[in-house]
Amino acid sequence: MTDIRIRSKIWLEINDRPFLGGGRLRLLRAIAATGSINAASQQLGISYRKAWSQVQEMEKHGIPMVEREKGGSGGGRSVITPQARELLSKFDDVQEGLHQVIDEKFDQVFKA
Amino acid sequence: MTDIRIRSKIWLEINDRPFLGGGRLRLLRAIAATGSINAASQQLGISYRKAWSQVQEMEKHGIPMVEREKGGSGGGRSVITPQARELLSKFDDVQEGLHQVIDEKFDQVFKA
Repeated sequence: MTDIRIRSKIWLEINDRPFLGGGRLRLLRAIAATGSINAASQQLGISYRKAWSQVQEMEKHGIPMVEREKGGSGGGRSVITPQARELLSKFDDVQEGLHQVIDEKFDQVFKA
Repeated sequence: MTDIRIRSKIWLEINDRPFLGGGRLRLLRAIAATGSINAASQQLGISYRKAWSQVQEMEKHGIPMVEREKGGSGGGRSVITPQARELLSKFDDVQEGLHQVIDEKFDQVFKA
């Protein structure tokens, strides 16, 4: 039992429905980095359709997350909204330190 | 954004492979409560086959988790091993208090 480890995952829910967690966080960060839902979906190895539906699922809760700028040659660019940017930053703040707390609690109990 | 909440999940891995988390914990507790893999699987609404394969997956890591007593009328009983009992208890110890730490961190960041 020497190589037993604890893993953890946190996510946000609104009205008891998934709002923001692993996959959607990666998607928002990829859109922010690439400036395009299409490029982001390719980077993550998911279909454009899936990426698009994830954005729509998030926005169902009434918080705009991605702004699509239509037109231009090669299609429109997409950027994440200030609200999405704030949520990403707050999520990081919550996550920071938590893994350490969890690891410490685990060591206390399992390696005592 | 008033009804936004944080959710969390912890699980154990051995050699980077899932060992013990939500579904398997419920299964072990149900076996402990009912004294039978069959009754436990019915209680959880999963097939006997699935319950059995979950036990086998856990035991692949070399820790005996469930002891099957063969024979008797109506088939053998099953009990969880002392090792499994200890793991369940330690898991509870780790989990206890963690949700509170996570909620506090969330409130600090999101409701400040």
